[in-house]
Amino acid sequence: MSTTTGHRGDTVSSEQPPTGDAGVAALLERGRALATPELRAAVHRLEPPMDSVAAYHFGWLDADGRPSTAGGGKAVRPALALLSAEAAGAPPETGIPGAVAVELVHNFSLLHDDLMDGDEQRRHRDTVWKVHGPAQAILVGDALFALANEILLELGTADAGRATRRLTTASRKLIDGQAQDISYEHRERVTVEECLEMEGNKTGALLACASSIGAVLGGADDTLADTLEAYGHHLGLAFQAVDDLLGIWGDPEATGKQTWSDLRQRKKSLPVAAALAAGGPASEQLAELLAHDAKTHDLSNFDEHAFATRAALIEEAGGREWTSEEARRQHTTAIRALDGAGIPGPVREQLVALADFVVVRER
Amino acid sequence: MSTTTGHRGDTVSSEQPPTGDAGVAALLERGRALATPELRAAVHRLEPPMDSVAAYHFGWLDADGRPSTAGGGKAVRPALALLSAEAAGAPPETGIPGAVAVELVHNFSLLHDDLMDGDEQRRHRDTVWKVHGPAQAILVGDALFALANEILLELGTADAGRATRRLTTASRKLIDGQAQDISYEHRERVTVEECLEMEGNKTGALLACASSIGAVLGGADDTLADTLEAYGHHLGLAFQAVDDLLGIWGDPEATGKQTWSDLRQRKKSLPVAAALAAGGPASEQLAELLAHDAKTHDLSNFDEHAFATRAALIEEAGGREWTSEEARRQHTTAIRALDGAGIPGPVREQLVALADFVVVRER
Repeated sequence: MSTTTGHRGDTVSSEQPPTGDAGVAALLERGRALATPELRAAVHRLEPPMDSVAAYHFGWLDADGRPSTAGGGKAVRPALALLSAEAAGAPPETGIPGAVAVELVHNFSLLHDDLMDGDEQRRHRDTVWKVHGPAQAILVGDALFALANEILLELGTADAGRATRRLTTASRKLIDGQAQDISYEHRERVTVEECLEMEGNKTGALLACASSIGAVLGGADDTLADTLEAYGHHLGLAFQAVDDLLGIWGDPEATGKQTWSDLRQRKKSLPVAAALAAGGPASEQLAELLAHDAKTHDLSNFDEHAFATRAALIEEAGGREWTSEEARRQHTTAIRALDGAGIPGPVREQLVALADFVVVRER
Repeated sequence: MSTTTGHRGDTVSSEQPPTGDAGVAALLERGRALATPELRAAVHRLEPPMDSVAAYHFGWLDADGRPSTAGGGKAVRPALALLSAEAAGAPPETGIPGAVAVELVHNFSLLHDDLMDGDEQRRHRDTVWKVHGPAQAILVGDALFALANEILLELGTADAGRATRRLTTASRKLIDGQAQDISYEHRERVTVEECLEMEGNKTGALLACASSIGAVLGGADDTLADTLEAYGHHLGLAFQAVDDLLGIWGDPEATGKQTWSDLRQRKKSLPVAAALAAGGPASEQLAELLAHDAKTHDLSNFDEHAFATRAALIEEAGGREWTSEEARRQHTTAIRALDGAGIPGPVREQLVALADFVVVRER
C-alpha cells in the first residue's frame, strides 16, 4: 500500500518524518485480521440475495458472484476499535464486536451515499447500485445498519448497551452530515464553519465512535470514553480535510475516483469554503463561477478545463493551503486530547501513529 | 373511520358480529393521543430539511410545508404497544417509548419500500420520494430507523436494552421480508409457504414487536414477552392476508391505492400463491398468464381488463376464499396464543377486539 511506504504526499507537508509506518501497517492488518472473519459471519446472516450483494460491496465476491480479493477500505476504523479496547486495559479482542458494528454502519452509509450521490465507482469497482440496482443498495444498507445493532446488543451486557447508544448517536450524526452535504450541493456558498460542522457529523462522529467503542466494551468509564471520542472526532476532521484535498487534487489511480471528483459533484468541501471565505480576486472569480454553476442543471457537459480552472482558483485563493493546515491543526488537537487520560504509553503511541498515517495518505 | 362502524366488509366473513368497535376506536385513539406528541418531539430532533420531510410523510405538513391534518396510518402498532404494557401490569404510559420506536421503524420501512416499489401514492397523498426526491426518502428513512433505537436506548435501563434487541431483530426480519417480496416479483410462481414466510417477516415481525415491547419496558419476563410476540406474529399474518385481499379487490377510494394495485406490481401475494397451488383450469390459465407477464418488461401498458382477468382467475381458482380463511385461521391462532399467559382479563379482551378489527377493516 503506497500510503504506508513512508512517502509523504504533497497534500499535507510537515517538518517531521512520519513515524511508525511499519507499525501502522501492522495495526491496520491486525484490525483486518481480527474483524474480517466476524464481519463475514455477520454478513452471512443476511437473506439471499442480500448476503452476496453485501459480499460484492465488501470485495469478497465479484459482480458475477465469484470469490474475489478486491481491496476493501483502509480499515482504519477496525484498527481504532481494537486500540480503543487496549486503551482501557482490555485485550484487543474485546473491541472486535465494536469494530464489526462500526464497519457495518460505515458500509451502510457508503451504500446509501453512493446511490444518493450517483457515484458509479468506489475502490476502483462499480458501486452496488450500479451492479445490483438501487433497491439492493437501499435494502442491503438497511440490513447492515440493523446488523450493527444486533451484533452489539446480542452481547447482552450493560457495556454493550452503552456502546450501542454511542453508536446510535454517531449514526444519527452521520445521517445529519450526509443531509447537510447534499443540501450544500445546491447552494452557491457555504461557510467554513458550516463545512466543519458537516464534516464533524459525516466523518468525525463515526471515527469518534470507533475510537471509544472498544474501551466502552472493555468497561471504561464515560470520562475515558469521551476522551477517546474527542481524539477520534478531531482525527475524523483531519481525515476529512485530507479527503477533501484528494477529492480535488487526488490521483485518480490512487483514489479510484474521477479527476476533480468533488467539483464535478458540486461538493462544498473545505478547500472551496476556505477559498470563498478568503476574499480577493481569485476568491471573487470562483464565487462568480460557482454562482453560475448553481444555475446550471447539469455539469456533465463541462470539459476538464472548466474543472481545472475552478481548482486553480481555489488554490490561488488559498483554499488548498488552508485545508492542509487545517488537517495538521486537527491532527495536533486529536493527539493532545489523549494527554492525561491515563492511556498506556504503547497504546497512546499507536494512536498517534494512526493519526500520522491519516494525514499523509494518498487515497 | 368506516372500518369501525360495524359494517363488515366482504373481504372476510364470519358468523359472529364484530365486538367492541367503539372500544377499538377508543384504543386506537388512545395510542395516537399518547404516542403522537412523543413521535413529533422525536422527529423534531432531525436536522432540516429532514424534519419537514418526515413531517410531510406523517401528514403533519403538506407538500408546501403548511400545517396539515392529513390522516396518518391506522395506528394499530401504538395501540398494541400500550396494551402490551398493561398486559404486564404496567400503566399504558410505560409503553409510549416502545410505541414511538415501533412507529419510527414502521415508517422507515414505508419510506424505503415506497421508493423501491415505485409507489407514487400512500394514504391518498404523493409519497415522499415523489414530492421530495429519492435522496430525501432514503435519508429520512435512515434517520427514523436510527431515532427508533435512540429513543429506546436513552431510557438507559436494562429493560430498554432488551426492548431494543427485540426491535432490532424485528427490523432485520422486516428488511428480509421486503427483500423476499421484491425477489418474488421477478419469479413466475411462489409457494404458499414462501409467501407466508415473507409475510411473517414483512408484517408479522414488527406487529409481534409492537405487541411485546410495552411489556418488556414494563419489566415482563421473556415468557410473557414471547407469548405476546406470538399473538402479534399471527395478528400480523391475519393483517397481511387482509391487506393482500385489499391489494387486489380493495376499493381505491378506501385504500388510497390504484385498482388491482398488487397485480400491477407483480406481487406474489397470498391469493396469487394459493391460486397457483390449487391446480385446475383457472389455476393453470393464471400460471400461463403470469409466466408470460414475467417475460414482459413493463406492465404499465396493460389495460384494466388484463388485470380484471387475472383477478377473476385468482378468485375462480380459490385464491380469494383461501386467503379469507387464512386470515380467520391466523386471527384464531393469535387469540389462542394469549391463553394461560396470566394477562389481566380486560387487557386480553382489548387485544381480542384489536384482532377482530384487523380482519374486518377495509383500508
